[in-house]
Amino acid sequence: WTAWCQTLQQTWHDTIPLSAYMQLNIDNFDGYQLQCSAPLAPNINLHHTMFAGSIYTLATLTGWGLLYLQLQSLGLSGAQVLAEANMRYFKPIKTAPQAICRLAEAKGDLTALSKGRKVQQQIRVELHADGELCAEFNGRYAVLPEQ
Amino acid sequence: WTAWCQTLQQTWHDTIPLSAYMQLNIDNFDGYQLQCSAPLAPNINLHHTMFAGSIYTLATLTGWGLLYLQLQSLGLSGAQVLAEANMRYFKPIKTAPQAICRLAEAKGDLTALSKGRKVQQQIRVELHADGELCAEFNGRYAVLPEQ
Repeated sequence: WTAWCQTLQQTWHDTIPLSAYMQLNIDNFDGYQLQCSAPLAPNINLHHTMFAGSIYTLATLTGWGLLYLQLQSLGLSGAQVLAEANMRYFKPIKTAPQAICRLAEAKGDLTALSKGRKVQQQIRVELHADGELCAEFNGRYAVLPEQ
Repeated sequence: WTAWCQTLQQTWHDTIPLSAYMQLNIDNFDGYQLQCSAPLAPNINLHHTMFAGSIYTLATLTGWGLLYLQLQSLGLSGAQVLAEANMRYFKPIKTAPQAICRLAEAKGDLTALSKGRKVQQQIRVELHADGELCAEFNGRYAVLPEQ
Protein backbone atom coordinates (compact mmCIF):
# COMPACT_ATOMS: atom_id res chain seq x y z
CA TRP A 1 0.00 0.00 0.00
CA THR A 2 2.83 2.34 0.85
CA ALA A 3 3.84 2.98 -2.77
CA TRP A 4 0.24 3.63 -3.83
CA CYS A 5 -0.26 6.05 -0.93
CA GLN A 6 2.95 7.89 -1.80
CA THR A 7 1.83 8.18 -5.44
CA LEU A 8 -1.61 9.36 -4.32
CA GLN A 9 -0.27 12.07 -2.00
CA GLN A 10 2.24 13.19 -4.63
CA THR A 11 -0.55 13.36 -7.25
CA TRP A 12 -2.66 15.52 -4.95
CA HIS A 13 0.15 17.93 -4.15
CA ASP A 14 1.29 18.11 -7.79
CA THR A 15 -2.12 18.56 -9.44
CA ILE A 16 -4.31 20.16 -6.74
CA PRO A 17 -2.40 23.17 -5.36
CA LEU A 18 -5.02 23.67 -2.65
CA SER A 19 -4.16 20.25 -1.15
CA ALA A 20 -0.49 21.23 -0.93
CA TYR A 21 -1.37 24.58 0.67
CA MET A 22 -3.54 22.73 3.21
CA GLN A 23 -0.60 20.36 3.90
CA LEU A 24 -2.91 17.41 3.43
CA ASN A 25 -1.21 14.20 4.50
CA ILE A 26 -1.98 10.50 4.14
CA ASP A 27 -1.32 9.04 7.57
CA ASN A 28 -2.21 5.40 7.14
CA PHE A 29 -3.90 2.80 4.98
CA ASP A 30 -4.15 -0.81 6.09
CA GLY A 31 -6.25 -2.14 3.22
CA TYR A 32 -9.50 -1.42 5.04
CA GLN A 33 -9.28 2.10 6.40
CA LEU A 34 -7.68 5.26 5.03
CA GLN A 35 -6.63 8.00 7.43
CA CYS A 36 -5.64 11.48 6.33
CA SER A 37 -4.93 14.67 8.25
CA ALA A 38 -4.09 18.34 7.87
CA PRO A 39 -2.56 20.78 10.35
CA LEU A 40 -4.65 23.59 11.77
CA ALA A 41 -2.45 26.59 10.80
CA PRO A 42 -3.17 26.83 7.04
CA ASN A 43 -6.75 25.72 7.66
CA ILE A 44 -7.78 28.08 10.44
CA ASN A 45 -10.87 30.32 10.45
CA LEU A 46 -11.81 33.49 12.30
CA HIS A 47 -13.01 31.47 15.31
CA HIS A 48 -9.51 29.91 15.57
CA THR A 49 -10.95 26.50 14.71
CA MET A 50 -10.72 24.56 11.46
CA PHE A 51 -12.38 26.29 8.52
CA ALA A 52 -15.51 24.56 7.16
CA GLY A 53 -14.07 24.61 3.64
CA SER A 54 -10.88 22.90 4.80
CA ILE A 55 -12.84 20.23 6.71
CA TYR A 56 -14.87 19.47 3.60
CA THR A 57 -11.81 19.42 1.35
CA LEU A 58 -9.93 17.07 3.69
CA ALA A 59 -12.96 14.75 3.70
CA THR A 60 -13.46 14.97 -0.08
CA LEU A 61 -9.88 13.95 -0.82
CA THR A 62 -9.90 11.17 1.78
CA GLY A 63 -12.96 9.67 0.09
CA TRP A 64 -11.40 10.21 -3.33
CA GLY A 65 -8.28 8.47 -2.03
CA LEU A 66 -10.16 5.39 -0.85
CA LEU A 67 -11.78 5.19 -4.29
CA TYR A 68 -8.37 5.49 -5.99
CA LEU A 69 -6.89 2.76 -3.80
CA GLN A 70 -9.78 0.41 -4.62
CA LEU A 71 -9.28 1.02 -8.35
CA GLN A 72 -5.56 0.34 -7.98
CA SER A 73 -6.20 -2.96 -6.24
CA LEU A 74 -8.69 -3.93 -8.98
CA GLY A 75 -6.18 -2.99 -11.68
CA LEU A 76 -8.59 -0.34 -12.99
CA SER A 77 -8.33 3.38 -13.63
CA GLY A 78 -10.63 6.19 -14.70
CA ALA A 79 -11.51 9.82 -14.15
CA GLN A 80 -12.72 10.12 -10.55
CA VAL A 81 -15.13 12.97 -9.88
CA LEU A 82 -17.31 14.01 -6.96
CA ALA A 83 -20.95 14.27 -8.07
CA GLU A 84 -22.68 15.25 -4.83
CA ALA A 85 -21.87 15.56 -1.16
CA ASN A 86 -23.48 16.22 2.17
CA MET A 87 -21.44 17.65 5.03
CA ARG A 88 -22.53 17.89 8.66
CA TYR A 89 -20.57 19.80 11.28
CA PHE A 90 -21.19 18.70 14.87
CA LYS A 91 -18.43 20.38 16.87
CA PRO A 92 -15.69 22.93 16.25
CA ILE A 93 -12.33 21.29 15.42
CA LYS A 94 -9.68 22.75 17.72
CA THR A 95 -6.74 20.42 16.99
CA ALA A 96 -5.47 18.81 13.76
CA PRO A 97 -8.23 16.33 12.82
CA GLN A 98 -8.06 12.81 11.46
CA ALA A 99 -10.26 12.00 8.47
CA ILE A 100 -11.21 8.32 8.57
CA CYS A 101 -12.74 6.42 5.68
CA ARG A 102 -13.60 2.72 5.86
CA LEU A 103 -13.79 0.41 2.85
CA ALA A 104 -16.69 -1.46 4.50
CA GLU A 105 -18.77 1.72 4.29
CA ALA A 106 -18.04 2.42 0.61
CA LYS A 107 -21.12 1.32 -1.32
CA GLY A 108 -21.13 0.62 -5.06
CA ASP A 109 -19.63 -1.96 -7.41
CA LEU A 110 -16.66 -0.69 -9.41
CA THR A 111 -16.01 -3.69 -11.65
CA ALA A 112 -18.21 -2.53 -14.58
CA LEU A 113 -15.54 0.10 -15.25
CA SER A 114 -13.52 -2.70 -16.88
CA LYS A 115 -16.32 -2.98 -19.47
CA GLY A 116 -16.03 0.74 -20.22
CA ARG A 117 -19.04 1.73 -18.12
CA LYS A 118 -19.32 4.62 -15.65
CA VAL A 119 -19.48 3.42 -12.04
CA GLN A 120 -20.46 5.18 -8.83
CA GLN A 121 -19.75 4.80 -5.16
CA GLN A 122 -21.19 6.38 -2.01
CA ILE A 123 -18.40 7.02 0.49
CA ARG A 124 -18.59 8.16 4.11
CA VAL A 125 -15.79 10.01 5.88
CA GLU A 126 -15.64 10.81 9.58
CA LEU A 127 -13.65 13.72 11.00
CA HIS A 128 -12.27 13.13 14.46
CA ALA A 129 -10.44 15.55 16.75
CA ASP A 130 -9.64 15.25 20.45
CA GLY A 131 -11.21 11.77 20.46
CA GLU A 132 -14.59 13.08 19.30
CA LEU A 133 -16.57 12.80 16.07
CA CYS A 134 -16.67 16.45 14.95
CA ALA A 135 -18.01 16.22 11.40
CA GLU A 136 -19.29 13.73 8.86
CA PHE A 137 -19.07 13.74 5.07
CA ASN A 138 -21.09 11.61 2.67
CA GLY A 139 -20.07 11.83 -0.96
CA ARG A 140 -21.26 10.23 -4.17
CA TYR A 141 -18.31 9.77 -6.52
CA ALA A 142 -18.37 8.70 -10.15
CA VAL A 143 -15.56 7.07 -12.10
CA LEU A 144 -15.71 7.71 -15.83
CA PRO A 145 -14.01 5.28 -18.22
CA GLU A 146 -10.89 6.75 -19.77
CA GLN A 147 -11.38 7.91 -23.34
CA TRP B 1 -22.47 48.34 0.72
CA THR B 2 -18.99 48.95 -0.61
CA ALA B 3 -17.42 49.51 2.81
CA TRP B 4 -19.08 46.41 4.27
CA CYS B 5 -17.91 44.30 1.32
CA GLN B 6 -14.36 45.62 1.69
CA THR B 7 -14.40 44.78 5.41
CA LEU B 8 -15.82 41.34 4.65
CA GLN B 9 -13.20 40.47 2.04
CA GLN B 10 -10.42 41.81 4.27
CA THR B 11 -11.75 39.74 7.19
CA TRP B 12 -11.72 36.60 5.05
CA HIS B 13 -8.19 37.15 3.78
CA ASP B 14 -6.89 38.10 7.23
CA THR B 15 -8.51 35.31 9.26
CA ILE B 16 -9.01 32.45 6.77
CA PRO B 17 -5.68 31.90 4.99
CA LEU B 18 -7.30 29.42 2.59
CA SER B 19 -9.55 32.19 1.20
CA ALA B 20 -6.49 34.35 0.47
CA TYR B 21 -4.70 31.43 -1.19
CA MET B 22 -7.79 30.81 -3.34
CA GLN B 23 -7.82 34.55 -4.25
CA LEU B 24 -11.48 34.72 -3.32
CA ASN B 25 -12.97 38.02 -4.41
CA ILE B 26 -16.24 39.84 -3.74
CA ASP B 27 -17.36 41.09 -7.15
CA ASN B 28 -20.64 42.78 -6.39
CA PHE B 29 -23.44 43.29 -3.90
CA ASP B 30 -26.49 45.37 -4.76
CA GLY B 31 -28.48 44.79 -1.58
CA TYR B 32 -30.22 41.74 -3.02
CA GLN B 33 -27.56 39.57 -4.60
CA LEU B 34 -23.97 38.83 -3.62
CA GLN B 35 -21.50 37.72 -6.29
CA CYS B 36 -18.09 36.29 -5.51
CA SER B 37 -15.45 34.66 -7.69
CA ALA B 38 -12.07 32.96 -7.63
CA PRO B 39 -9.55 32.41 -10.42
CA LEU B 40 -8.91 28.92 -11.73
CA ALA B 41 -5.11 28.72 -11.22
CA PRO B 42 -4.91 28.24 -7.41
CA ASN B 43 -8.12 26.18 -7.52
CA ILE B 44 -7.32 23.71 -10.28
CA ASN B 45 -7.57 19.91 -10.04
CA LEU B 46 -5.99 17.04 -11.94
CA HIS B 47 -8.66 17.26 -14.66
CA HIS B 48 -7.66 20.93 -15.25
CA THR B 49 -11.06 22.07 -14.03
CA MET B 50 -12.00 23.68 -10.73
CA PHE B 51 -11.36 21.48 -7.71
CA ALA B 52 -14.51 20.28 -5.88
CA GLY B 53 -13.11 21.55 -2.57
CA SER B 54 -12.54 25.02 -4.01
CA ILE B 55 -16.04 25.14 -5.51
CA TYR B 56 -17.54 24.26 -2.13
CA THR B 57 -15.35 26.75 -0.28
CA LEU B 58 -16.23 29.57 -2.69
CA ALA B 59 -19.93 28.75 -2.20
CA THR B 60 -19.61 28.45 1.59
CA LEU B 61 -18.02 31.88 1.94
CA THR B 62 -20.47 33.50 -0.47
CA GLY B 63 -23.36 32.23 1.67
CA TRP B 64 -21.52 33.27 4.83
CA GLY B 65 -21.02 36.70 3.27
CA LEU B 66 -24.71 37.18 2.50
CA LEU B 67 -25.48 36.28 6.12
CA TYR B 68 -22.86 38.77 7.37
CA LEU B 69 -24.28 41.55 5.17
CA GLN B 70 -27.80 40.90 6.47
CA LEU B 71 -26.56 41.10 10.07
CA GLN B 72 -24.75 44.35 9.28
CA SER B 73 -27.90 45.90 7.83
CA LEU B 74 -29.88 44.77 10.91
CA GLY B 75 -27.23 46.24 13.22
CA LEU B 76 -26.58 42.77 14.66
CA SER B 77 -23.50 40.62 15.05
CA GLY B 78 -22.70 37.11 16.23
CA ALA B 79 -20.55 34.06 15.59
CA GLN B 80 -21.54 32.75 12.16
CA VAL B 81 -20.98 29.03 11.62
CA LEU B 82 -21.94 26.54 8.94
CA ALA B 83 -23.91 23.65 10.47
CA GLU B 84 -24.69 21.52 7.43
CA ALA B 85 -24.39 21.72 3.67
CA ASN B 86 -25.31 19.89 0.51
CA MET B 87 -23.27 20.36 -2.64
CA ARG B 88 -24.22 19.16 -6.11
CA TYR B 89 -21.85 19.26 -9.06
CA PHE B 90 -23.54 19.29 -12.47
CA LYS B 91 -20.75 20.19 -14.89
CA PRO B 92 -16.99 20.68 -14.76
CA ILE B 93 -15.99 24.33 -14.25
CA LYS B 94 -13.49 25.28 -16.95
CA THR B 95 -13.30 29.06 -16.45
CA ALA B 96 -13.32 31.26 -13.33
CA PRO B 97 -16.85 30.80 -11.91
CA GLN B 98 -19.25 33.29 -10.38
CA ALA B 99 -20.89 32.31 -7.10
CA ILE B 100 -24.31 33.96 -6.87
CA CYS B 101 -26.38 34.17 -3.71
CA ARG B 102 -29.77 35.91 -3.56
CA LEU B 103 -31.27 37.42 -0.43
CA ALA B 104 -34.75 36.33 -1.59
CA GLU B 105 -33.63 32.70 -1.31
CA ALA B 106 -32.17 33.01 2.21
CA LYS B 107 -34.73 31.48 4.57
CA GLY B 108 -34.80 32.15 8.30
CA ASP B 109 -35.52 35.09 10.60
CA LEU B 110 -32.41 36.65 12.13
CA THR B 111 -34.02 39.22 14.45
CA ALA B 112 -34.17 36.95 17.55
CA LEU B 113 -30.38 37.35 17.73
CA SER B 114 -31.03 40.77 19.25
CA LYS B 115 -32.70 38.96 22.18
CA GLY B 116 -29.59 36.83 22.67
CA ARG B 117 -31.01 33.78 20.91
CA LYS B 118 -29.30 31.56 18.34
CA VAL B 119 -30.75 32.01 14.85
CA GLN B 120 -30.44 29.94 11.69
CA GLN B 121 -30.73 30.51 7.99
CA GLN B 122 -30.83 28.21 4.96
CA ILE B 123 -28.88 29.78 2.09
CA ARG B 124 -28.58 28.70 -1.53
CA VAL B 125 -25.61 29.53 -3.73
CA GLU B 126 -25.36 28.92 -7.46
CA LEU B 127 -22.06 28.48 -9.28
CA HIS B 128 -22.05 29.70 -12.85
CA ALA B 129 -19.34 29.40 -15.49
CA ASP B 130 -19.51 30.00 -19.23
CA GLY B 131 -23.15 31.04 -18.84
CA GLU B 132 -24.17 27.69 -17.36
CA LEU B 133 -25.23 26.55 -13.89
CA CYS B 134 -22.38 24.18 -12.99
CA ALA B 135 -22.97 23.51 -9.29
CA GLU B 136 -25.38 24.30 -6.47
CA PHE B 137 -24.76 24.67 -2.74
CA ASN B 138 -27.37 24.65 0.00
CA GLY B 139 -26.10 25.48 3.47
CA ARG B 140 -27.67 25.80 6.89
CA TYR B 141 -25.87 28.48 8.87
CA ALA B 142 -26.26 29.34 12.54
CA VAL B 143 -25.48 32.64 14.22
CA LEU B 144 -24.62 32.32 17.90
CA PRO B 145 -25.11 35.33 20.18
CA GLU B 146 -21.80 36.84 21.27
CA GLN B 147 -20.81 35.93 24.79
